[in-house]
Amino acid sequence: MKNSIFNKFTPKEPKFFPLLKELAEISDKAAEQLILCVESNNSAGADAIHQEIKDLEHQGDALAHKIFDELNSTFITPFDREDINSLANRLDDVTDQIYSCAKRISFYKAKRLPEEAAELAKQVKSATEIMQKAVAELDVLKKNPRAIAQYCSELHKLENQADEVFQKFIIKLFETEKDAVELIKLKEIVNVLEGITDETDHVGKIIKTIIVKYA
Amino acid sequence: MKNSIFNKFTPKEPKFFPLLKELAEISDKAAEQLILCVESNNSAGADAIHQEIKDLEHQGDALAHKIFDELNSTFITPFDREDINSLANRLDDVTDQIYSCAKRISFYKAKRLPEEAAELAKQVKSATEIMQKAVAELDVLKKNPRAIAQYCSELHKLENQADEVFQKFIIKLFETEKDAVELIKLKEIVNVLEGITDETDHVGKIIKTIIVKYA
Amino acid sequence: MKNSIFNKFTPKEPKFFPLLKELAEISDKAAEQLILCVESNNSAGADAIHQEIKDLEHQGDALAHKIFDELNSTFITPFDREDINSLANRLDDVTDQIYSCAKRISFYKAKRLPEEAAELAKQVKSATEIMQKAVAELDVLKKNPRAIAQYCSELHKLENQADEVFQKFIIKLFETEKDAVELIKLKEIVNVLEGITDETDHVGKIIKTIIVKYA
Repeated sequence: MKNSIFNKFTPKEPKFFPLLKELAEISDKAAEQLILCVESNNSAGADAIHQEIKDLEHQGDALAHKIFDELNSTFITPFDREDINSLANRLDDVTDQIYSCAKRISFYKAKRLPEEAAELAKQVKSATEIMQKAVAELDVLKKNPRAIAQYCSELHKLENQADEVFQKFIIKLFETEKDAVELIKLKEIVNVLEGITDETDHVGKIIKTIIVKYA
Repeated sequence: MKNSIFNKFTPKEPKFFPLLKELAEISDKAAEQLILCVESNNSAGADAIHQEIKDLEHQGDALAHKIFDELNSTFITPFDREDINSLANRLDDVTDQIYSCAKRISFYKAKRLPEEAAELAKQVKSATEIMQKAVAELDVLKKNPRAIAQYCSELHKLENQADEVFQKFIIKLFETEKDAVELIKLKEIVNVLEGITDETDHVGKIIKTIIVKYA
Repeated sequence: MKNSIFNKFTPKEPKFFPLLKELAEISDKAAEQLILCVESNNSAGADAIHQEIKDLEHQGDALAHKIFDELNSTFITPFDREDINSLANRLDDVTDQIYSCAKRISFYKAKRLPEEAAELAKQVKSATEIMQKAVAELDVLKKNPRAIAQYCSELHKLENQADEVFQKFIIKLFETEKDAVELIKLKEIVNVLEGITDETDHVGKIIKTIIVKYA
């Protein structure tokens, strides 16, 4: 298209949706690795998993940055620029928090991760799957906002469930772990693990804001 | 009214204010129970209080959800939809944090809650009372924004005061508590208790944003 | 200017930029004192430094409040009122977090602050310097948004670097510190110190939102 003005007014929205979907996919891949990371319990293979999550974290960072750049060079966007930017940042925060958790598992060298850690990692994976579905339907938001809002409610429910698992674990930890340093390590690892569902819940809240504004 | 278009344009704003007020009232009731919860110190009656706060948390969640649904089906709102949604979420966060705190008090079974815990619970109650007053005047925001801003300043001041109480307690705790596990329990309970005033301060900040936009 | 209506329509934007710059300068001064605070290691002079940071925190609070008041009495603002208010609050949060950290250093009386604390304090100072530069260019945002976005990226990078330092320190702490209470103290102090770069990163994110909306 030669006419640059015309070009400027051509809707360019569709490109943001694939980028946001890609960001959600990165989080989901990281969640998949996180399950392996928890299961590995710092045995052989743990380093490779940790590196894989680190790579995903860098990909997410680069992609969020690309979305920011695109927003600044795009004349027309499907939603307000700042909402797309917030959603991209929040999606990226999920991967960041997964990476934070993997680092702690690798570095703290707790003697043995509890079964609740495995349970939480599976809840995180459920949350990133739901998050992916919600993001995948954003380009047809007006068609079915109720379905997307439903995904957001499920993210909120998962966050509550993860909190229950965390609390259950902490009670047991206080009763059984007599080594204070080990207690501190495990409490922090499981806390950061549970915190990932806070981040997926934040994504749900941003999406609900988008529904409230545009649906 | 038969004319549906006409109906659609009829201002429907007033209904949001009672819902927001109700949310603030739920927080205040939870704060009242929290004082009893701290005083009970896990003796008889503590379970009933814990259950009462859990019920209030569910009521708050359902109400925040109702506000979200109403926003999506209402043509005209008094403020931007997203601001009402943010405020509802932040009000609900206060009750959530109170519930988090009550769970910890119930589950951790600390030997004895310090007097600072009672002091903080009273500050929380003062904060939810001020929060209620601020929310109650939102429907006449333009009449007296200065008064509402003043309530927000008081919420900020209370947060600072609660932080002072927390710090004072932590110093004493480090000096006197030689059992590391007990220290961790008490530090966390009092930290989460103090964190409730962070949430009430957040409500104040959202209200200040609304003042800045609409007053 | 006698004509009050005319007066009302006269652009009054420029006054916000000096106030925001001043807020950023206060954070930077606090960061400078924080380096001294860490170095002092609770020896003589520590109290004076602590008081100095407290004074800066009060100055920041008063200034953020002044910006809020000005926003409510100003007809025309350079950006949406709520964005200026958010930026002012986030800048003020940096100074608040520095003060929180100084309090913990003063009150916890850890036996010896680790070298990583000094390293982190220097990273904080680098961050507040970059933050100042970014804020200083906001009044010519449209001229060179890319340069300001670059500062924001640097703030994000510094946050990551500070997190690495924190993790490195925690690993060492878990390996070497056998006194659980001392471990809790040092973990918390260094955690709050690292958290200051989270706050400077938040400032970067708000500025990026402003770029996305207005550049």
